[in-house]
Amino acid sequence: MADNVAAVLHGAYDIRIENIPIPEINDDEVLVNMDCVGICGSDVKLYTTGACGMEIISEPVVIGHEGAGVVLKIGSKVSSLAVGDRVAIEPTQPCRACEYCKVGRYNLCVAPRYCSTTGAAGNLCRYYKHVADFCHKMPDNLSMEEGAAVQPLAIAMHACNRAGIRLGQSVLILGGGPIGILCAMTARAMGASTILITDVVQSRLDKARELGADYTLLVKRDYSDEEVVDGVVSQLGCQPDVTIDACGYASAQRVAMMVTKTGGVILVVGIADNKVEVPLSQALLREVDVRGSFRIVNTYPPAIAAVSSGAIDLKKFITHHYPLQSAKEALELAKSGDAMKIIIHVQQLSCFISYHNAVKIVTTISRYENPAQFNPNIK
Amino acid sequence: MADNVAAVLHGAYDIRIENIPIPEINDDEVLVNMDCVGICGSDVKLYTTGACGMEIISEPVVIGHEGAGVVLKIGSKVSSLAVGDRVAIEPTQPCRACEYCKVGRYNLCVAPRYCSTTGAAGNLCRYYKHVADFCHKMPDNLSMEEGAAVQPLAIAMHACNRAGIRLGQSVLILGGGPIGILCAMTARAMGASTILITDVVQSRLDKARELGADYTLLVKRDYSDEEVVDGVVSQLGCQPDVTIDACGYASAQRVAMMVTKTGGVILVVGIADNKVEVPLSQALLREVDVRGSFRIVNTYPPAIAAVSSGAIDLKKFITHHYPLQSAKEALELAKSGDAMKIIIHVQQLSCFISYHNAVKIVTTISRYENPAQFNPNIK
Amino acid sequence: MADNVAAVLHGAYDIRIENIPIPEINDDEVLVNMDCVGICGSDVKLYTTGACGMEIISEPVVIGHEGAGVVLKIGSKVSSLAVGDRVAIEPTQPCRACEYCKVGRYNLCVAPRYCSTTGAAGNLCRYYKHVADFCHKMPDNLSMEEGAAVQPLAIAMHACNRAGIRLGQSVLILGGGPIGILCAMTARAMGASTILITDVVQSRLDKARELGADYTLLVKRDYSDEEVVDGVVSQLGCQPDVTIDACGYASAQRVAMMVTKTGGVILVVGIADNKVEVPLSQALLREVDVRGSFRIVNTYPPAIAAVSSGAIDLKKFITHHYPLQSAKEALELAKSGDAMKIIIHVQQLSCFISYHNAVKIVTTISRYENPAQFNPNIK
Amino acid sequence: MADNVAAVLHGAYDIRIENIPIPEINDDEVLVNMDCVGICGSDVKLYTTGACGMEIISEPVVIGHEGAGVVLKIGSKVSSLAVGDRVAIEPTQPCRACEYCKVGRYNLCVAPRYCSTTGAAGNLCRYYKHVADFCHKMPDNLSMEEGAAVQPLAIAMHACNRAGIRLGQSVLILGGGPIGILCAMTARAMGASTILITDVVQSRLDKARELGADYTLLVKRDYSDEEVVDGVVSQLGCQPDVTIDACGYASAQRVAMMVTKTGGVILVVGIADNKVEVPLSQALLREVDVRGSFRIVNTYPPAIAAVSSGAIDLKKFITHHYPLQSAKEALELAKSGDAMKIIIHVQQLSCFISYHNAVKIVTTISRYENPAQFNPNIK
Repeated sequence: MADNVAAVLHGAYDIRIENIPIPEINDDEVLVNMDCVGICGSDVKLYTTGACGMEIISEPVVIGHEGAGVVLKIGSKVSSLAVGDRVAIEPTQPCRACEYCKVGRYNLCVAPRYCSTTGAAGNLCRYYKHVADFCHKMPDNLSMEEGAAVQPLAIAMHACNRAGIRLGQSVLILGGGPIGILCAMTARAMGASTILITDVVQSRLDKARELGADYTLLVKRDYSDEEVVDGVVSQLGCQPDVTIDACGYASAQRVAMMVTKTGGVILVVGIADNKVEVPLSQALLREVDVRGSFRIVNTYPPAIAAVSSGAIDLKKFITHHYPLQSAKEALELAKSGDAMKIIIHVQQLSCFISYHNAVKIVTTISRYENPAQFNPNIK
Repeated sequence: MADNVAAVLHGAYDIRIENIPIPEINDDEVLVNMDCVGICGSDVKLYTTGACGMEIISEPVVIGHEGAGVVLKIGSKVSSLAVGDRVAIEPTQPCRACEYCKVGRYNLCVAPRYCSTTGAAGNLCRYYKHVADFCHKMPDNLSMEEGAAVQPLAIAMHACNRAGIRLGQSVLILGGGPIGILCAMTARAMGASTILITDVVQSRLDKARELGADYTLLVKRDYSDEEVVDGVVSQLGCQPDVTIDACGYASAQRVAMMVTKTGGVILVVGIADNKVEVPLSQALLREVDVRGSFRIVNTYPPAIAAVSSGAIDLKKFITHHYPLQSAKEALELAKSGDAMKIIIHVQQLSCFISYHNAVKIVTTISRYENPAQFNPNIK
Repeated sequence: MADNVAAVLHGAYDIRIENIPIPEINDDEVLVNMDCVGICGSDVKLYTTGACGMEIISEPVVIGHEGAGVVLKIGSKVSSLAVGDRVAIEPTQPCRACEYCKVGRYNLCVAPRYCSTTGAAGNLCRYYKHVADFCHKMPDNLSMEEGAAVQPLAIAMHACNRAGIRLGQSVLILGGGPIGILCAMTARAMGASTILITDVVQSRLDKARELGADYTLLVKRDYSDEEVVDGVVSQLGCQPDVTIDACGYASAQRVAMMVTKTGGVILVVGIADNKVEVPLSQALLREVDVRGSFRIVNTYPPAIAAVSSGAIDLKKFITHHYPLQSAKEALELAKSGDAMKIIIHVQQLSCFISYHNAVKIVTTISRYENPAQFNPNIK
Repeated sequence: MADNVAAVLHGAYDIRIENIPIPEINDDEVLVNMDCVGICGSDVKLYTTGACGMEIISEPVVIGHEGAGVVLKIGSKVSSLAVGDRVAIEPTQPCRACEYCKVGRYNLCVAPRYCSTTGAAGNLCRYYKHVADFCHKMPDNLSMEEGAAVQPLAIAMHACNRAGIRLGQSVLILGGGPIGILCAMTARAMGASTILITDVVQSRLDKARELGADYTLLVKRDYSDEEVVDGVVSQLGCQPDVTIDACGYASAQRVAMMVTKTGGVILVVGIADNKVEVPLSQALLREVDVRGSFRIVNTYPPAIAAVSSGAIDLKKFITHHYPLQSAKEALELAKSGDAMKIIIHVQQLSCFISYHNAVKIVTTISRYENPAQFNPNIK
């Protein structure tokens, strides 16, 4: 049986490619032969600081939470999946018993096991186990790279659900990073008529326009909040019905509170500093609702359906590819901010021409381990 | 000043092209120089029976309620429109004072004046007056034909709003007439992943597929309800999240109650017989909600936005064109069921090659009356 | 250790008081020393026909699903409860993995274990095991009888939630049985201003008025639907905003569709015959929504809170008391329709004066088994 | 015909009792013989500063917007009211044509005429005209004092609607002024189980407990935010599901963001400074929604119903009474903060024993003007 090669973070900037044990699965779990794993901003934060949000690395942890692979083995009580199924892995395993799980808000679970947080391994490794019902079977027309990228799409989709985007609305997105871009694509798929994205980097805005934004606004460092507001309104031709803050600056929240249309919604998916000085009353007096979205809840199935139906095209969103052994290089590129979405390929690639361009790489089942190794009863 | 030529219905099958007075406008009204008016199923019903719903023609009435034109004159208190504006006319003038108007459900107004109902003229005529705020200014990239067709689209959009269609859902539409097709186009624009339309006429299904349905099912006269249910599920690969009944047969309602997914929604936009025998408990026990939609409420603006942004393409939906003088022929064609959407052109057309094909006819402002005739103060 | 005495149904009318094994608990379960168990209409149906809904008794089953008791033993992973806790038992154990469980609609779970259905014992017995998180800890000011009656209250509360009852509304309730009465009490607690209950039995209406209905209407056998509608409107002084059908007759559904206010809601909690002939279009055209409610979802905590705070008083709702040995008599009385809510006492009662009147019976912890028997490690 | 005596504000602290013309009514208006008018915090602000919100007094304005009276005369198109009807006056006259009016959010109307704002007189005068449909007919069991107090209740009810309060929830209210107290009473009527009110003045907390709060917390000037949070949680026994900020301090908003339960709602009805420094991310990350409520929308009818049904008792809420001639004294008392709700009686009172205690004053129709004076056709 093959080694379980994994990308293990030992501390800030200390990422190592190591062998770890192949996990034993429980009755309700499956063992997944990982194929593609995306790199996310929170991976970069963990890599550069050894901490992310309230998580501080106290012992070595496998990174990775945007993964897709092939089922190698299933637990005795698993009936929803079979060996050989291609799955996109929703990176949480909630408790299922707290009040949030029961009301369908498992993203707020009081005791989730979320990939790469304390007590829960990430999936940037060869063999990874997960509860079966959070491994979502992928339609044949989704590639493994797309399967991995369903994770940030599901984040964006939850944000857009919370924002309540409806057909015909105008949407402002503050921040043209991966989540901002995916929010734009999702808003479009939900029927938004006009979408404007702002960013401080022109190349991101170029990508945003390629991926579907109608308008873009380059925010220069010395712009006042009022200048940003004026720029948005003059381009959109109106105040936005919905503003999504996908960047995490206090200035974005101020602009959102000033520019959003009376009766509209501000949705914060990028989290700003703990204390911010904002014109909140100005928004609330006009019944502009201010909401946040946290992680993912029930958006893997619609995200997969939207990609499969063509409503959302993730192919242009994926811009770079690396093999597992080059995880450190991938994290360094992600840190630079020059990449939209980097995919790390755990499986050996027969054809690996270039990583800095958006090359469509054909992945085939033949590259995976022989399930018979893991399932003695399969002949 | 030109004559006000109008299509006046005097009784069943008795439609006459007549001169009527040019209406005087009130302070909050505008006079519209009509351009295009669509023909709808309810026009056909009125034409063939002299009645529609609870409306019975007791005196001659101008027909038409899917209209677009150009503003010729504005009332003294009108500030939202100017002479020369191209407008799509929402065919209601609610009371604005009843409890329904106040809560934003003016489609349920207790005393609306709705085109072609008692006390409210239709707009298939040259000069028509309407309250200004129910005349919606059209963006430059909408043609007058599209402006007229916004009316049935707004009907479909209200139906889809009531159905609560969300990104990634599967939708079954029973009935491939104009409203069914527009519901499919709207559902797609709202993010539905999979759409199946049923009908008893193959040519409608062909049109449905051309306009965006993923699947179609020809329902033969001798099919049992169970056969239709099986056909739907085997094509969709699942039970639909939402079923829209756009045909008005009791059999459609039975199928809807049987086939819709547990926890899903049935939306009835086509109204069946007064008393129907249906397996209602079967649906309600599974918490399938049964809802109806009535007319239009607040969906003109998003409908116009969706057409303008390209999310919905009405051009292929419009299939036939007639001049006002041929209103009777148009109604006869509509009655035959062979047309998807017929537009009647009130303005003289410089080029009128063929009416039985979907010819794009360029209409220009030069064809309209000179506003100076109607506004002595305009020099 | 004491015997596990249980009320076991072997077939229609064949209920036996028997000894059954004390169940072994799993890590996430608790063993409950049952105290009070209410008798419900579905128990009567099971008792008289050997079937209820789609459930048919193929092997002997312990009945009872409205239970409260004291925790005797907890599984190794249970942290939410302790030995000695008084708990109201929500009688389902959903799969937690299907799409319905994940979106917070576990009442629609595809594979629940619901008390007294195939593969899931009821709790009319001395020792009963259940997953810990569906055993809700009771505040000190709730009696065990009230704890048992929380179950039908939670049913009513889910129905009223689905009906969307709001402050100031008028509510019509068709059927003055236990669920109808509890819907009235819940509607009142949610702020309904005016409540009318109909029934065919005057004594139920008397009880309804005692428990909070403002108006009652006795529906005589020969009344036409129109007469019932007129009677409702003349008493309420208006059409009801919400109609709850808590009786399960097709006639009730017809009346609901005729009488409910335009834009209102019909909620069916009593299930009628499979096929009904109803004026559905009349309701849907007026955008009256028709919804069903199934079992319980997330309403145990608010039901307990409402009883504890005094917003809902269950004491007058509980009318009769029996010891476990008299389960058959209790079922016979329930069958007669003369009782509102019958509680069966599993624990021996020190004082048991009369069962046919609403006697408040003080139950004390001293009557329960010694937990040390079940928990060797408790000294 | 009698003089139209009115309380006219000419500038800060310059309130004069003057004669003004009796207004002429339009077709859709009624003339109301005012009876009772409440004094509100915004009246005090206008009185003490000559400005309120964005309103600055540039010319003398009649104050008063919490009024009730008797219809003296009706416009030619008014059918909903008759001479002699007792009405509570909703103090707005929205445009009915903007997008907010059309969707049922007329509180956000772009061009409302709101009592005591530019171009719209207040109703603290003898004769006042208003559009008929915003004059709500009162049931016989509401006194005129209660009719006036329906206005702040409707404010509180809109706030509670926006907060989405549900049966069984725990609610924290920051600020025990009139709106905070009415929010508590409304929350209770909607089914809240546990309500805690905070204030900096003990006497307000005493009144709060008398009117229905379960718990109170006196916030001392030197308390840190954390101390307030701890005090709330230790009394409630949990974090509140909903927090209503009814006081308008930045500190209240900070506490709200810290203490509200994950997944809960913060509703701001008291507006704080324009820029506040708040831990917003902490709330949004936990999906605590932050909402504001502005004025009143569609809550007069349910407020009247709730008072009439007894769900809300306004009698104890009304604490002081003054005659119109003493308007200045009433405003001075209101300014002192020592009164809960002051009612100014426009009609002469036969019995006016004391104004500093909550005396129930019987008002009878005999005190009003003879409608025949205003309606020559009434004999």
